[in-house]
Amino acid sequence: MHQQDEPRDQVRADRDVAWMRRALELAARGRLPDANPRVGCVLVSADGDLVSEGWHRGAGTAHAEADALGRAGDAARGATAYVTLEPCNHTGRTQPCAQALLDAGVARVVHAQSDPNPRAAGGADVLRDAGVEVVSGVLDEEATALNATWTHLVTTGRPWVTWKLASTLDGRSAAADGTSQWITGPVARDDVHARRSRCGAVIIGTGTALTDDPRLTARRADGTLFDDQPLRVVVGERDLRPGARVLDDSAPTWHLRTRDPKEVLTRLADAEIHHVWLEGGPTMAAAFLAAGLVDEVIAYVAPVFLGRGRPSVGDLGITTITDALRLEPTDITVLGTDVRITASLKEIH
Amino acid sequence: MHQQDEPRDQVRADRDVAWMRRALELAARGRLPDANPRVGCVLVSADGDLVSEGWHRGAGTAHAEADALGRAGDAARGATAYVTLEPCNHTGRTQPCAQALLDAGVARVVHAQSDPNPRAAGGADVLRDAGVEVVSGVLDEEATALNATWTHLVTTGRPWVTWKLASTLDGRSAAADGTSQWITGPVARDDVHARRSRCGAVIIGTGTALTDDPRLTARRADGTLFDDQPLRVVVGERDLRPGARVLDDSAPTWHLRTRDPKEVLTRLADAEIHHVWLEGGPTMAAAFLAAGLVDEVIAYVAPVFLGRGRPSVGDLGITTITDALRLEPTDITVLGTDVRITASLKEIH
Repeated sequence: MHQQDEPRDQVRADRDVAWMRRALELAARGRLPDANPRVGCVLVSADGDLVSEGWHRGAGTAHAEADALGRAGDAARGATAYVTLEPCNHTGRTQPCAQALLDAGVARVVHAQSDPNPRAAGGADVLRDAGVEVVSGVLDEEATALNATWTHLVTTGRPWVTWKLASTLDGRSAAADGTSQWITGPVARDDVHARRSRCGAVIIGTGTALTDDPRLTARRADGTLFDDQPLRVVVGERDLRPGARVLDDSAPTWHLRTRDPKEVLTRLADAEIHHVWLEGGPTMAAAFLAAGLVDEVIAYVAPVFLGRGRPSVGDLGITTITDALRLEPTDITVLGTDVRITASLKEIH
Repeated sequence: MHQQDEPRDQVRADRDVAWMRRALELAARGRLPDANPRVGCVLVSADGDLVSEGWHRGAGTAHAEADALGRAGDAARGATAYVTLEPCNHTGRTQPCAQALLDAGVARVVHAQSDPNPRAAGGADVLRDAGVEVVSGVLDEEATALNATWTHLVTTGRPWVTWKLASTLDGRSAAADGTSQWITGPVARDDVHARRSRCGAVIIGTGTALTDDPRLTARRADGTLFDDQPLRVVVGERDLRPGARVLDDSAPTWHLRTRDPKEVLTRLADAEIHHVWLEGGPTMAAAFLAAGLVDEVIAYVAPVFLGRGRPSVGDLGITTITDALRLEPTDITVLGTDVRITASLKEIH
């Protein structure tokens, strides 16, 4: 009997993967910097026909499962639900999705990533206990990658920190007189703005705020603002200048009067911000690096020499080559005349 | 009549290009660091059959034309000679090639690059005056690229200078205590050695010689020496340590007791060295850059941070960003965990 079942099981597994891919596509429509993860859901009838699709549009709106169930009505009865994240077992702004799926009479639930959030986990067990067939972990990796920084926050308690660095080939982030516009070219600058818009917060120090007076918004090449603007965070004890651009009304701004990277990240974690874009100067970068609080570096390296000027990173307490902070490059891309090097802080040598 | 001739002219032009490609292949067999250019020659009969091939094996050996003529014997009479460089009109270690081609009874000469050397040029005119049909400039660019640094020496009077730089992402070439082995990984290091072996000379300063005691030879990954070893040049007024590795017998070494980059290059030009590989420290690099004597930078950038340490380049007298030395990148290649950025010193912004 077992041998006869094998081809049928394989067909079912392939179908599960195909529907989950669709659910992942739906999930990707969500807002990346949102406090909630991006989730997609597809309801498929016992006959294998699409019943309805749903996805989560951000905190305060319906979860993906509720969105799909709402469109399905009675047709959800006996269906299979494909969800990119384990249905929640948590009463928040909405009722637990596990319960909603039960109420709608869904017969089978296939999910990808298991909920890493201890407050929301347990949905799969609730469903199983109620007699629903549950399949876990289908396209788990893809689903987790879709919410990598959210998962990082939920599992570690602190946001994922990307340190962005624009540097000359000789490691300078500004000339001797402090001028730094522009080291990199327009393609790299556009890339920075697009990536800012996908983060929950952008951090600079009061020094940079006072010297460069940056807007710190995410703008397109034509100067218009992206729909998503990160929280602007200025870190340091000095007062900001009244009328500083970073205080304009194009996005919210926090001034955190501390120099402790850990305290900064705790405050951002409390605000459910899971991806932080660090644009600090050499001292702030060194403080985050030395505290082990940088997860990833994105360095935009321009084919430019300055000879002297502000170094891209301050003293790290390293005196000999064997103690050098070695990163693992994950991506190297040419952007116009510059190179973008993405590297993770997992040490490799 | 003219219209009837066109297709036949086109056939002949295509055939000229095809034979010249073969001559370029032969030329590429020559030694890149040699004092003489790399040249290939193909002799083709009036019927369009290959008569013989030749190429130049380096200073003191037969020129490509003489090599091909020697193998052809009487069959050279009435033939077309395809030569990648204009036949010389210069009596040096060998007789002028233009005269040799005339003596052999060659009826037609097709050449690529015109001889940029005023002492050797004029061969095409000599042949034309003697009634030989001469076609110039076929695959000129390819032929010139094959001898780019030799052409640079002959036309400017000084060698082509490649500044090689190994640097961390924050622009350091050594840690605070002076240690620098290793910043880059093995793939980048092998690339450096292979490129050293294609240059006529490698330059370091006495500071690097005294601190690092490098061999400065071109070695394979297994430690064996490449066949071609560049001249090792140590520049600076300080004495070398007796028994310094750079003084061993694996390659010739010069100690030039000067700090003037121009004087260094004049001495190397006099020795017919056309490609110099500059591995100096920050002070020497800054001196060559400031004097406008660097033609190309090859930077090996490692995903490593040091925080402080020896900068890759010293003071260039630049104080503000608009005066930054901006280069034009010509190649960006990932080598293991490092990135190799090749850029020309032609300023672009």
